[in-house]
Amino acid sequence: MDIKNQIINIAKDAQEAFRVSLGLTMQIKNKVLKEMADALLHNKVNIIRENQKDLKNAVKLKMAAAFIDRLTLTEKTILQMSDSLREIAALPDPIGETIKSWRRPNGLFIKKVRVPIGVIAIIYESRPNVTSDCVGLCFKSGNSVILRGGSEALNSNLSIYKTLKAVLHKNKVSDGLVNMITTTDRKAIDVLVKLNDYIDLVMPRGGEGLIKKVVSLSHVPVIKHYKGVCYVYVDKEADLKKAVEICYNAKVQRPGVCNAMEGMLVHKDIANKFLPLIAARFETAGVLMRGCALTQKIIEGVQKATEKDYRTEYLDLILSVKVVKDLSEGIYHINTYGSHHSDTIVTEDGKAALEFLKYVDSACVYQNASTRFTDGNQFGLGAEIGISTDKLHARGPMGLEELTTYKYTIFGTGQVRK
Amino acid sequence: MDIKNQIINIAKDAQEAFRVSLGLTMQIKNKVLKEMADALLHNKVNIIRENQKDLKNAVKLKMAAAFIDRLTLTEKTILQMSDSLREIAALPDPIGETIKSWRRPNGLFIKKVRVPIGVIAIIYESRPNVTSDCVGLCFKSGNSVILRGGSEALNSNLSIYKTLKAVLHKNKVSDGLVNMITTTDRKAIDVLVKLNDYIDLVMPRGGEGLIKKVVSLSHVPVIKHYKGVCYVYVDKEADLKKAVEICYNAKVQRPGVCNAMEGMLVHKDIANKFLPLIAARFETAGVLMRGCALTQKIIEGVQKATEKDYRTEYLDLILSVKVVKDLSEGIYHINTYGSHHSDTIVTEDGKAALEFLKYVDSACVYQNASTRFTDGNQFGLGAEIGISTDKLHARGPMGLEELTTYKYTIFGTGQVRK
Repeated sequence: MDIKNQIINIAKDAQEAFRVSLGLTMQIKNKVLKEMADALLHNKVNIIRENQKDLKNAVKLKMAAAFIDRLTLTEKTILQMSDSLREIAALPDPIGETIKSWRRPNGLFIKKVRVPIGVIAIIYESRPNVTSDCVGLCFKSGNSVILRGGSEALNSNLSIYKTLKAVLHKNKVSDGLVNMITTTDRKAIDVLVKLNDYIDLVMPRGGEGLIKKVVSLSHVPVIKHYKGVCYVYVDKEADLKKAVEICYNAKVQRPGVCNAMEGMLVHKDIANKFLPLIAARFETAGVLMRGCALTQKIIEGVQKATEKDYRTEYLDLILSVKVVKDLSEGIYHINTYGSHHSDTIVTEDGKAALEFLKYVDSACVYQNASTRFTDGNQFGLGAEIGISTDKLHARGPMGLEELTTYKYTIFGTGQVRK
Repeated sequence: MDIKNQIINIAKDAQEAFRVSLGLTMQIKNKVLKEMADALLHNKVNIIRENQKDLKNAVKLKMAAAFIDRLTLTEKTILQMSDSLREIAALPDPIGETIKSWRRPNGLFIKKVRVPIGVIAIIYESRPNVTSDCVGLCFKSGNSVILRGGSEALNSNLSIYKTLKAVLHKNKVSDGLVNMITTTDRKAIDVLVKLNDYIDLVMPRGGEGLIKKVVSLSHVPVIKHYKGVCYVYVDKEADLKKAVEICYNAKVQRPGVCNAMEGMLVHKDIANKFLPLIAARFETAGVLMRGCALTQKIIEGVQKATEKDYRTEYLDLILSVKVVKDLSEGIYHINTYGSHHSDTIVTEDGKAALEFLKYVDSACVYQNASTRFTDGNQFGLGAEIGISTDKLHARGPMGLEELTTYKYTIFGTGQVRK
């Protein structure tokens, strides 16, 4: 069978399994998830052995240390994967919830009910733990999942996948609910994202290149996570001690992630006081600042920031800095150059904070807290399948609820339209 | 200025206006909407005169009667457009609503708040009343709108547009909130749907050809309304009197619309009794049935239904009919051949109804009521911008709430991530 037909068959199976499995109870779903968690631990020697094959390949291909780090599975990471499935089992089941209900004057009773989306394709790179996280979240939310991991992690992914799939078999749950595309042929993605008759949602998880490719090819709706160009604006009414701690944390605590600060804006009235404080603190961590002319005047040796800097996701200990004349300029700068992900105002002025929270057009807008909190776990969603920088369907951290849609069920007694 | 730059400028203005207008109060919005309603009435002679130009063209081009009917504006239709704006003014404002809020153990207070989507482009055909409906709904929900009507209605649309825009001017509300692309160059759509930096959502309203074109070109998320291939399943426990009334209404009351019945399924145990009843009733309206072999055996002179019939949106007094052996086959048929729009079960058996409502994967699923109720007004949403056959973001009739998204606003006291 050629690749195209192979993938179409997988997608058809996934759709069929989704429909059949609308009858799965919460009890069965949670039992399966807990057994999946057990199975990962039980099978860890196998999984680690398969992971070694991928690692050997990666070394042979002279991949960077960070890449190899993301690819590596250890007893500890497998334990985390297992715990994660157990946590998903413990979360409330979103499916079947009545979101709203009302009766019409003609007697029709309308119920808006939460249901699974259907078939979700996840296209991801390197991290093999994504395999079990996505299976857990999609299974709990009643969706079928089609996984398409990177070729660099194929052995690891396959071994995790087989472990989880065996649990479905054992529990006589339709195994079309969990699928993996195992061919390493790159054409597979092209075929997959065109199957809008069978697939309801595509989520690419990886670098900007992958996401742009999927968006340009896909006939299926895509929820995207583009860049995180997050800003902290230090207002003239800021508590400077808090401002230093928040900026330092947002930039330094984990610079390589999407919710780290990439740009810092400072109100002109406090720039002379604040910039030397934060510069001294940043120096201890080796942070490189690129600033506007005013920043350069206040802090010696700062490089000039260009327009491009203000839009850049450095994912590194580099930071753009700009002194702004007021709150409005700060908001305007963030809406223009930021990526609508997560932005913070540091201020003790409640009115300024409300203005910032209202006018900054981002998924998560903070007063007096680090941008690093944008995360499903930190938000208390229990688990996350990703963070959306889109505005439609879901925005910000996506948990179980964001993997659902709704339908209207309407109860009549013979009503016809006049 | 070339078309491309013209359209980019409109989109930029629209985005700027959306941001600035986040501060508009409910009071101002409702005042503007009511004045828009007045302005339409005040200007009706003008609008009708401009509409006459379009009608003259349509006649010259020998357009069909139905087309001309959709294009025609009368005093009565303008009054309806005006009333519609007044109704939108009377609806509750969705913006600013706190959807959920909670406090995290570290003290962070998280509020999920309803906000406008941003810039919405509407691409539509013929009906000029869409112009004012869309302006009203988008304005009330805080979104900027870019209208792109069909060339056949340009004079009418432009005249309505100018009338409404003048009200924005008069009230000193940012007039970039309401925009119209007036070039009839077809390239305009190609340019528009690629502007994902400025436009957040595209909604095509028109025939399948238009929708498919927009989906294949767009870099902006699209919410679609594809076909309505709606089914009624008459269960073995149906009240046959109700069944006849519901099937007749769903097929005959307005056959040319998306929520009309296109396929009828009948349980084998009652086929002998029910089919002659409904056939006699359909005959009074001239409905043509195309049936399976069993239907043909029971009702004389019925044409053979093909696979294609079961998928066809006739929009006419034609109907596919199939006798099924049980509820499961009925559900399977609907999920396979229907368009996931609106489907009904007629039954007095509560268990069968719940199974149908659960397993039929459609936006609106009914027990004992006509599919014709799928409509924003009939649902009590007040007004609708369309019906979504998509599953993401919005499903079924879309009112004001469906034109919103959310953001997280997070209040801290200096929290940093550990």
